[in-house]
Amino acid sequence: MGVCSAAPRRSLRGRWAQLTWLTSSHRRALAQHSVTPAQGTLRRRQWAGVPTCAVSRPWGVRPGDRRGLHAASSSFQEVMLGRGLHAASSGSQEVMLRRGLHAASSGSQEAMLRRGFHAASSGSPEVMLRRRLHTASSSSQEVMLTSERYSVRRLPFSHVCDSDVAFFERVMPGRVITDPEELKPFNVDWLKSVRGCSKLMLKPQTTAEVSQVLGYCCERNLAVNPQGGNTGLVGGSVPVFDEIILSTALMNRIISFDKVSGILVCQAGCILEKLNEYLEEQGFIMPLDLGAKGSCHIGGNVATNAGGLRLLRYGSLRGTVLGLEVVLADGSALDCLASLRKDNTGYDLKQLFIGSEGTLGVITAVSILCPQKPKAVNLAFLGCQSFAKVLETFTTCRAMLGEILSAYEFMDEKCMELVERYLKLSSPVTGSPFYVLIETSGSNSTHDEFKLNNFLEQAMTSGLVTDGTVATDDKKIKMLWSLRERITEALTHDGYVYKYDISLPVEKLYDLVTDTRARLGQSAKNVMGYGHLGDGNLHLNITAESYSHSLLDAIEPFVYEWTARYNGSISAEHGLGFKKKQFLRYSKANEAVLLMQRFKAMLDPKGILNPYKTLPSSS
Amino acid sequence: MGVCSAAPRRSLRGRWAQLTWLTSSHRRALAQHSVTPAQGTLRRRQWAGVPTCAVSRPWGVRPGDRRGLHAASSSFQEVMLGRGLHAASSGSQEVMLRRGLHAASSGSQEAMLRRGFHAASSGSPEVMLRRRLHTASSSSQEVMLTSERYSVRRLPFSHVCDSDVAFFERVMPGRVITDPEELKPFNVDWLKSVRGCSKLMLKPQTTAEVSQVLGYCCERNLAVNPQGGNTGLVGGSVPVFDEIILSTALMNRIISFDKVSGILVCQAGCILEKLNEYLEEQGFIMPLDLGAKGSCHIGGNVATNAGGLRLLRYGSLRGTVLGLEVVLADGSALDCLASLRKDNTGYDLKQLFIGSEGTLGVITAVSILCPQKPKAVNLAFLGCQSFAKVLETFTTCRAMLGEILSAYEFMDEKCMELVERYLKLSSPVTGSPFYVLIETSGSNSTHDEFKLNNFLEQAMTSGLVTDGTVATDDKKIKMLWSLRERITEALTHDGYVYKYDISLPVEKLYDLVTDTRARLGQSAKNVMGYGHLGDGNLHLNITAESYSHSLLDAIEPFVYEWTARYNGSISAEHGLGFKKKQFLRYSKANEAVLLMQRFKAMLDPKGILNPYKTLPSSS
Repeated sequence: MGVCSAAPRRSLRGRWAQLTWLTSSHRRALAQHSVTPAQGTLRRRQWAGVPTCAVSRPWGVRPGDRRGLHAASSSFQEVMLGRGLHAASSGSQEVMLRRGLHAASSGSQEAMLRRGFHAASSGSPEVMLRRRLHTASSSSQEVMLTSERYSVRRLPFSHVCDSDVAFFERVMPGRVITDPEELKPFNVDWLKSVRGCSKLMLKPQTTAEVSQVLGYCCERNLAVNPQGGNTGLVGGSVPVFDEIILSTALMNRIISFDKVSGILVCQAGCILEKLNEYLEEQGFIMPLDLGAKGSCHIGGNVATNAGGLRLLRYGSLRGTVLGLEVVLADGSALDCLASLRKDNTGYDLKQLFIGSEGTLGVITAVSILCPQKPKAVNLAFLGCQSFAKVLETFTTCRAMLGEILSAYEFMDEKCMELVERYLKLSSPVTGSPFYVLIETSGSNSTHDEFKLNNFLEQAMTSGLVTDGTVATDDKKIKMLWSLRERITEALTHDGYVYKYDISLPVEKLYDLVTDTRARLGQSAKNVMGYGHLGDGNLHLNITAESYSHSLLDAIEPFVYEWTARYNGSISAEHGLGFKKKQFLRYSKANEAVLLMQRFKAMLDPKGILNPYKTLPSSS
Repeated sequence: MGVCSAAPRRSLRGRWAQLTWLTSSHRRALAQHSVTPAQGTLRRRQWAGVPTCAVSRPWGVRPGDRRGLHAASSSFQEVMLGRGLHAASSGSQEVMLRRGLHAASSGSQEAMLRRGFHAASSGSPEVMLRRRLHTASSSSQEVMLTSERYSVRRLPFSHVCDSDVAFFERVMPGRVITDPEELKPFNVDWLKSVRGCSKLMLKPQTTAEVSQVLGYCCERNLAVNPQGGNTGLVGGSVPVFDEIILSTALMNRIISFDKVSGILVCQAGCILEKLNEYLEEQGFIMPLDLGAKGSCHIGGNVATNAGGLRLLRYGSLRGTVLGLEVVLADGSALDCLASLRKDNTGYDLKQLFIGSEGTLGVITAVSILCPQKPKAVNLAFLGCQSFAKVLETFTTCRAMLGEILSAYEFMDEKCMELVERYLKLSSPVTGSPFYVLIETSGSNSTHDEFKLNNFLEQAMTSGLVTDGTVATDDKKIKMLWSLRERITEALTHDGYVYKYDISLPVEKLYDLVTDTRARLGQSAKNVMGYGHLGDGNLHLNITAESYSHSLLDAIEPFVYEWTARYNGSISAEHGLGFKKKQFLRYSKANEAVLLMQRFKAMLDPKGILNPYKTLPSSS
């Protein structure tokens, strides 16, 4: 496609749209796409090429022993659900959830499941549906206990006894759960990869109740597992043994919202999507957005320092969270719930709890700065001839789109090939080794489109991009987003998937894919890369016909060492939880790990808060 | 002024400009203004109405004892320079510095002083000029020693001896300063309000050298005062006794800048303005801007969590600082210098050092995310009939200007009256009880002007604002900014000024002014408010013919209690340093203060790092 620079700029957009969008084949593709998701999504997908057994390896080997780093993958189930964490999340369940986002109002089974997932804490019939689903799946295919799968030794905490239950019943009558069936879904993560055996769940409504609980547990040496929406991907939100589950589900009150400052204060158990809906009515949005928004709690988001889709534009929770209320391990409440943009009175204590995954304290309330709801959204999907051009396109578009740029994603041609092959999606842009997806969000659609077209003209005339399309209406925007969002799903059809979620200096991002591809040669089926280029977040994926011990050995510790060499992060957005804690030293200096351990020892000397998580086990 | 909504929007701007800007009287006012600053700024201003003596009070009384809270104001000099902190900074020196910004290339004495201030660490002849100026002023009017003025007791640190100096000479030959004359300017803050008596300054170039110094000092129990550009306003950057001054002046190397990610990595001693100049050449800017940018070091900015002029748009350093390298009190180096937007591997240790004012570690390098340089800047100066309308105008303009809004400042009519009376500035907008200044920064001037005009039309037709003017060229923008920026200076001509820098929930912001005015009645000359409304930052100012003990009693602890009642902050942007540490409990819960003390004890058990600062003295 060519662009005549002499043409009036205002017509550029129309020509782009005509050239790529309005061909009949693409209309057909779009029609096909808009129907496809509603069909067959409840069908349980087969995991093509996954072996039925694998060599068992011990857990808990330290990074110093490179060979033992991937020890987590000790059984078939574990390979699929543990090491194959991403693979699991890319399978049917995640797809259903994603599609449910679009189909939520269609009344289909899928939409019901989605709503059920959203309403997990509301006590509605949908909750019952969700619980039944959980129960059904639990009984048909019980998840192996974490303690057995990973050979974890229980720490010498007390065991819950009747007098403990009686105490909690006095503190919060009717909100003490001991029924094993009712407890089941809260003992297992939603990926069904880790499972504890807690016999007690508490559902406080107030900070004072959380204080009473922790004060008592500290004295009794009872371990506690704080739990929000239980949507974590690294096994951080469910017990490993019999820790008491301390749920924030009933702490779902919005305390205040100031329309002038845009500052929201709410309890930790508020569901992200409900907060966003509440804010949208007033012309604001939450500064973060996640696939799990229908279930996840804001307290859990903060505790895990969730990233998500809006980070490029609105920054991380480190900047947007203005205050926290936290109950410490000894039951004392720490009130740092300032709702001020500027406060320079001493150490910013709340930061220590952001991303600490419930190991330093239980977040009970959050104060957060919310941006205006954008009035206009545009999407461009472009083809680039090299990764260097992907980077230069990013530089150019950031300069030309400036304040309205809200997403810059990339994917390589292998991703596109698999999306087209397995999902029958049709891209309006083809024949390039790389594709980028650029989203703008702004306050004036005319201005935003003008800026976008201007950038597109520049990108085309300078040869940065060779083909592309733009979309402004919701349907087309969703179709284009699906080409990027459904890569994870497509890969699961290609065989066993080795998945890595890596942060790297942006100029090094694709080198890891190239180097891994060169290293693995014919032993891998496909090696591909995609991700949030604007955030420096690469999803490196390797597929093979089946799980192979020797292929894993060729990948690890190579990928972690490569990442460490360029000061990258082995966990860009998922946290450490239970599953990644042993790999921490690839991204943190020893001094930093030691300091983390000192903070933990200072704030929770008995180690009762979310034990077995975040901090590497001692050797 | 009226607006005809039927008129084509594109013409609105022109009409606004014509109606308010292009009258001959305003042209005259502008001409006058553009000349005024260059004249007489080196003349030492008289402090009208300041008493020549005041009742002495002891320092160190705790907040529990309300009567002792303003104990700092124990003498005339102290009243002017200590309690009258803002008054001092609003006097000639600050004005000279500000004006120097505009006149930097004019070759005047003023510009020379400014440049001298900028180049303090460069070793150029200008440095000598600065030192002479410092020396001259020191000898003519020696600042009272902090230890004497505030009756501070020296903690039992070792005293520096010859063998210590010999050791440091071996570590960094030629960069060990012991000459008392050379040390003078580094023993006193630039407000000339606090003074120490250090006999030794070290100028490391590398992190390894800082490590060696701190390791040695820790072993020898020698106290250390980390120092950047020494531009702090709360006495945090100079020794109280004979602490060794550890200067970052020679740690001024830019380590890397990634044009794709916008991430800058540099040593702590880089001067903010130099970093900004470096970035501007590449189409970026620093995410913070300060009046002291010509002298302040980025390490000091981070250590004090500096706010400044760009906070509304680019957020705080908590979000933009991506990584730090810090040397701890025992000399161990903590490498958290990630240059990644996303890193979710455990506790975010760097946050503890941001805003810790050198009390927990010495920042040696910084990684920071830098935004694009805006291509267009506009300014609107408007009159509002009530504070409610100031707030509604903010809500409206934020909604309509969206992503291009970069500043929203306000001032009341009393401020304007004093600016006009004492500085002979002429405002193009008059006759309103409140004024607001709105700045936009964006990537397309046409779009930005369209949005601004659109907003202005809406604000006028709905009666939110009753008068206003807009500016796009640099000269007019500076003239309008000066109406806001020179308030501090104007107030010093009105008498003795009681100054407060308060963060409050934005809807409560002006209530403090109203309540204070009602409380003080005729005992105050004027009570006025202005500040960064967009950031919830109020500058409450009270003037009186002269300093009065009883008026101070009427103001304090009233203002602090009022602030605490609405969960405000008693230090919005200046930090605690030496001067505000005793007031900390008005903004921090006891549990938070205790936790701060535990962090300090853990990271610096001997307390050698910047002693006497940030943490309240024990009773």
